[in-house]
Amino acid sequence: MRAELIMVGTELLLGEIVDTNAIYLAGELADLGIDVFYKSTVGDNFKRACGVLTTALSRSDLVIMSGGLGPTDDDLTREVVAEVLQCPLQENSEVLRDIEDWFTERYGQLSMPPHNRRQALFPQGSQVLANSVGTAPGFFLAKEDKVVIALPGVSLELKTMFSTQAVPLLLKQSSGERLVTKNLHFVGIGESGLEEILADILQTQTNPSLALYASGGTVRVRMAVKASSQAEGFQLMAPVEEEIRRRTKEYLYGTDGQSFEAVIAERLLTKKLTLALAESCTGGLIGHRLTNVPGSSGFLERGFVVYSNRAKVEELGVATATLDMFGAVSAETAQEMAEGVRSKAGTDLGLAVTGIAGPGGGTESKPVGLVYISLSSAGDTIVQRHLWKGTREQVKHRAALMALRLLWQATR
Amino acid sequence: MRAELIMVGTELLLGEIVDTNAIYLAGELADLGIDVFYKSTVGDNFKRACGVLTTALSRSDLVIMSGGLGPTDDDLTREVVAEVLQCPLQENSEVLRDIEDWFTERYGQLSMPPHNRRQALFPQGSQVLANSVGTAPGFFLAKEDKVVIALPGVSLELKTMFSTQAVPLLLKQSSGERLVTKNLHFVGIGESGLEEILADILQTQTNPSLALYASGGTVRVRMAVKASSQAEGFQLMAPVEEEIRRRTKEYLYGTDGQSFEAVIAERLLTKKLTLALAESCTGGLIGHRLTNVPGSSGFLERGFVVYSNRAKVEELGVATATLDMFGAVSAETAQEMAEGVRSKAGTDLGLAVTGIAGPGGGTESKPVGLVYISLSSAGDTIVQRHLWKGTREQVKHRAALMALRLLWQATR
Repeated sequence: MRAELIMVGTELLLGEIVDTNAIYLAGELADLGIDVFYKSTVGDNFKRACGVLTTALSRSDLVIMSGGLGPTDDDLTREVVAEVLQCPLQENSEVLRDIEDWFTERYGQLSMPPHNRRQALFPQGSQVLANSVGTAPGFFLAKEDKVVIALPGVSLELKTMFSTQAVPLLLKQSSGERLVTKNLHFVGIGESGLEEILADILQTQTNPSLALYASGGTVRVRMAVKASSQAEGFQLMAPVEEEIRRRTKEYLYGTDGQSFEAVIAERLLTKKLTLALAESCTGGLIGHRLTNVPGSSGFLERGFVVYSNRAKVEELGVATATLDMFGAVSAETAQEMAEGVRSKAGTDLGLAVTGIAGPGGGTESKPVGLVYISLSSAGDTIVQRHLWKGTREQVKHRAALMALRLLWQATR
Repeated sequence: MRAELIMVGTELLLGEIVDTNAIYLAGELADLGIDVFYKSTVGDNFKRACGVLTTALSRSDLVIMSGGLGPTDDDLTREVVAEVLQCPLQENSEVLRDIEDWFTERYGQLSMPPHNRRQALFPQGSQVLANSVGTAPGFFLAKEDKVVIALPGVSLELKTMFSTQAVPLLLKQSSGERLVTKNLHFVGIGESGLEEILADILQTQTNPSLALYASGGTVRVRMAVKASSQAEGFQLMAPVEEEIRRRTKEYLYGTDGQSFEAVIAERLLTKKLTLALAESCTGGLIGHRLTNVPGSSGFLERGFVVYSNRAKVEELGVATATLDMFGAVSAETAQEMAEGVRSKAGTDLGLAVTGIAGPGGGTESKPVGLVYISLSSAGDTIVQRHLWKGTREQVKHRAALMALRLLWQATR
C-alpha cells in the first residue's frame, strides 16, 4: 500500500512551528508496514488543497490528511474531500448531538455556537472517527481502490484518533501483515563504534532488518520485522537481539520507551541506594533529569549547585588547599566534592561534576570542555576526566549524561 | 512571487527526524516577503522526484529543493532538475578543482574518491552556489519565468548557503521590497489575556501586521511590515511597538532572540546582585536554566536541591516545627527556605520553590500541581501560591518559569 500525507494549514507553511503530526504519522505508518512516498503541506485554500488531493490520489492508495476539521470557514478539509471524491456532504445527526452535548457539559446553559454545526458534516460514505479528546470528529472514506483518512490538526487529538480509530480500520484493509519494531538504547558508545561491533550483523541481517540512529549522546538500534502478530515478530527478533546483547552489554541500557534516568532510578530504588549530588558546571541539570522520574524522592536525598569556590568549601568541605593547588576543575576537587557530599548528606552514593562549560573561562592547560566526574561510595571513589568540544549547553548536556552513565555502571 | 519547497530524501518520509530545513526556509522566505504555498517531501527516487518538480513548476514561480546533492548514486537532484527543465548536465572545471583541493587539504595524499566528481555537474545555465562548510555545491537556475534553487540537505550547509549565496540572487529577482519582522516576548500572561489588552490594535493594525504565538508558558507578538530596508521597517513599527510596550510593561521581557534567563542574568549582573537557590520540586531546573547563560557564575553563588525534609532542615535551617505544622509544601516552608538559603549563602537574594509535581503525592487539601514560590531580599520576603494542571514535567517547567518571573519582577 502506497501512502501519502497532506498537512493542511497556512501556519504550517510559515515555518513558525514544527510539524510533529507528519513525523508521528510517518513513524506509525512505517510500523504498520505501509510505505509513505510523499508528504505535502498546503495552506487553508480550497482550490490549492483540491489540487494537492487530486495529485495525491493519482499516485497513492492511501491519503491521510491532518488539519482543517475545525468549525471556522477556514476549515476546508470536509469540503475538499467531498469535491475531489465527488461525495457530497451530509449531516450526521448522531455526531451533531454529541457536539451539542459536549458544549452543554462544559458550558452549561450556553448552547453550541452555530458554526460548530459544520463539524457534523461528512462526505457521503464516510465512517466517522470519534474524537474522545476534542470536538472535531475525523472520517475514513474508502472509495473504489482509494482510502482517505481525515484527522484533526491538534496533535493530541490526531494521535488519539489515529491510534484508536483509524489503525483498526486500516488493518482491516491491509493484508494483515504488519511491521513489528523494537528499539535497543545505548550510552557511552558512538554510532560508528557500535557499527563496528555489529558490522557483520548489520550487513547480513535482513529479517529483522536493523538500523542505527544517534541523538544527544545516545544511540538506538531499531529492529524491524514483518510478521502477522507482535508475538511472532518478537520471536523472529529474539536470536538477533540476544547476539546484540551479548556483544554490547556494557553499553545497552534499555528498550523501547525507557529513559536513561528512569532505568537508573529503578536500579537505585531496587537496591535501596540513596544519592546526593554536587554539581558545578552542570548547574542543576543532573538533579533536573533525575527528578523528572516519578518517585525520585525515594533515592535522591539532596543536591548542591556549588558554583562558587566558597560554596564548595562551605557546603562540601572541599579543602581550600586543594582548590589553591589544583584548581576548582581538577580530579582532586571532583573527588573531594563527591566524598564531601556523600558524607554530609549521609547517603550511600555521592556524585560530583566540575568543569568548564565555556565559552569563557578556559586556559591552555584547562580548556573549555574539560570536565571531571566523580562517584563516591562506601567502597571507593572513582574519578573520570573528559574533554569535549561544543557549545556551553552541549558540554553541560554531555557532562550530565556521562555522570549518569557512571552512576549506571556503578549500580549494576 | 509564489514559492514552494521540495525536500528530497527517503529518510524524511520515515518520520525519524524533524525536517528543520523546511522550517528554516519557510521562515526565511516569509521574512523576504515571499509567500510559500506548498511544501512537498519525496524520497530518493528519480521518477517520483521528477513528478513532484514538474507539479511544483506548474503552480509556483520559485522552487527550492533541499537534499540529493551528495556524491552517491542516491543523490539525484542534479539529474532531476536537468531532466525536468531540459538543461543537460555539464561539468564545471573550477568546482571540480575546488572539490579535489578540499580532499587534498583534509586527507593529504589521498585523492578525491571518483564518486565525488558528480558534485561538479550542474544543469546548463546554472549559477553555482559555493559551499563554504562542506563539499556539495548547490545551484541557482533561472529559466523563462521560473527559478529553481538546489541546496544541500545538511542543515548547517543549507543555512549558510541560503543566507550568503541564494538570498542575494533572490533579492535581485524580486522587487527589492522585503518583510521586516520584530518579536516581543511576554511572560506571566496567556495568549488570550494579551489578546484582550491589545484587541483594538490587533484588529485594526495592518502595517505592521501583528500575530500572537504561545509556547511553553511565554507568548510572542510578531510584528511584520513590508519595507525597502530594515531601518525603514523598524521606523514603521516604532509607534505600534511603543503603544504595545505602554500597555504591557509588566509582562514584556525582551525582543528577538533574548532568552528570559539571559534578561534576568543581565539585570542581576548590572545591579551587582548575588543569588542563591533552594529547589525542591523543580529538582535543579532553575539552576540549570540560569547556568545556561554564559557568565552566570557572576551572580549565582550556590544552589540546593532539598528533596528530603531532612535536607530542608539541615541545609536551610527550616524549623522542624514548621514542617510538622504546615508541611513541606506550604507558604511557611517556602518562606523559611528562601530566607534560609539567602542567609546561609550570604547572598542578596534567595529564591525557593516547593511543590507537588506529581503524579503521586497529592491529597485533597494539597493536590498535585500545588506550588509555593518565595523570594527573600534585604527588604522583605514574598511568597506566591500557584496551582497548575499538567504532567510532572509541565508542573516543573511552569514552576521554574514562574520562579524566574518573580526574580525578574523583583529586580526591575
